[in-house]
Amino acid sequence: MIANGDKELRQALQHFASTAADIYLPGISIDTVIFGFHGGKLNILLLRFGNADNYSLPAGYIEKKENIDDAAIRILNERTGLTQLYLEQFYVSGKADRISKQVITDAFKNLNLKLPANNWFSQRFISVCYYALVDFTAVQIRSESMFSEIKWFDVKKLPSLLFDHHSIIKTAVKKLQTDLDHKLPESKLLPEPFTMGELQKLYEAVFQKKFVRTNFQRKLLGSGLLERLEKKYSGKAHKAPFLYRFKGESK
Amino acid sequence: MIANGDKELRQALQHFASTAADIYLPGISIDTVIFGFHGGKLNILLLRFGNADNYSLPAGYIEKKENIDDAAIRILNERTGLTQLYLEQFYVSGKADRISKQVITDAFKNLNLKLPANNWFSQRFISVCYYALVDFTAVQIRSESMFSEIKWFDVKKLPSLLFDHHSIIKTAVKKLQTDLDHKLPESKLLPEPFTMGELQKLYEAVFQKKFVRTNFQRKLLGSGLLERLEKKYSGKAHKAPFLYRFKGESK
Repeated sequence: MIANGDKELRQALQHFASTAADIYLPGISIDTVIFGFHGGKLNILLLRFGNADNYSLPAGYIEKKENIDDAAIRILNERTGLTQLYLEQFYVSGKADRISKQVITDAFKNLNLKLPANNWFSQRFISVCYYALVDFTAVQIRSESMFSEIKWFDVKKLPSLLFDHHSIIKTAVKKLQTDLDHKLPESKLLPEPFTMGELQKLYEAVFQKKFVRTNFQRKLLGSGLLERLEKKYSGKAHKAPFLYRFKGESK
Repeated sequence: MIANGDKELRQALQHFASTAADIYLPGISIDTVIFGFHGGKLNILLLRFGNADNYSLPAGYIEKKENIDDAAIRILNERTGLTQLYLEQFYVSGKADRISKQVITDAFKNLNLKLPANNWFSQRFISVCYYALVDFTAVQIRSESMFSEIKWFDVKKLPSLLFDHHSIIKTAVKKLQTDLDHKLPESKLLPEPFTMGELQKLYEAVFQKKFVRTNFQRKLLGSGLLERLEKKYSGKAHKAPFLYRFKGESK
């Protein structure tokens, strides 16, 4: 944790607040829900600004001449190091009062920073929300001087979050549940090849409930999504579970 | 059609261009794809500004203190008279070059209007897109002085359209195809009660292909979405087709 009033953080924040309006479109932010599957859990990446009480979703703004989808890719790349990303717009959060000016004012006060006139962070923002499905093991988390922490959280054990970020995550999880059958093969959420057991664990993490093994197998095998790999001969091969990959274009 | 240079239109445009920046959030518009089912066709509502070459989707802006979903409801109400609407955010169109400044400049020129400095219409807009599923027969189309025409078009026979509106409509139709089973019961697209034949016509209009009657019936009856109504006794009742309504809360 960065100490109250840390110099590098304070300078970075002050610099950002004084230059952002020249670089970015006003009033529109991008929030990203980055899903990674690891240890049988659905995880999302969260960060903390300086000594803030709450964690935040990785977020950013759109450069004045940048396509919005390119901005989302840039923001995700800045935090994960990934260049190839499976990414989907899923929601626009646009309530007039979603940004609490008090939270911003308090954050500046806690850092002993003067709140600039027309402070960039205190304006009304409409947030375009994207979710990304990433290969957990391929992510190289990247921080920068404004953040004191950036790390994965089990989606079932989230910390206290900024503004409406809880509700954005809830919406993202619902959308992922609806989309999972269609999106999983294109995404890198579950690296290939995988066992039926690993696939079931992923579905259980996303839907936050247990499935009966035989029913789950029957449903998934019947869906036409999967291709079973030939077993390679080895002394112990008959004991190993079958391996699967997704049908369709190879990745 | 309004004649080139029509006074009322010119005044309305000039008034709007000079006041919009005080009322609305900059850089964000709302485009709406209003679907109505009629005569076996999937229709959408389009309008034309003055003597413009192209038709447009009904669109609008977000008041500075208005929730974005409320803005969408207001815009739809302004054009359709409907207050209860089934409405869904489905896409954000955000390419940097989606608004052609030349089209705006030409439109003002054609109306013998001077393009104001910092013209509201020429800024970059990110468009939050909503689709609405409405009861065609309940819509009372409402125009205003900036429009020369507002009417329904068969989604398979669209006229020339402004900016990226063709692509927005295509995205909306795809989304509707994905969502139809889930959304139809809550919407008013097909007023209840209906025959299996009417339901099949709706699906054919949305998916833009024919279905085999027996297969369609089997699939829909198997889906658990429908409830068959008791036939009421009458001399001719045995000749009438069965009537259905959607299960779930009554509307």
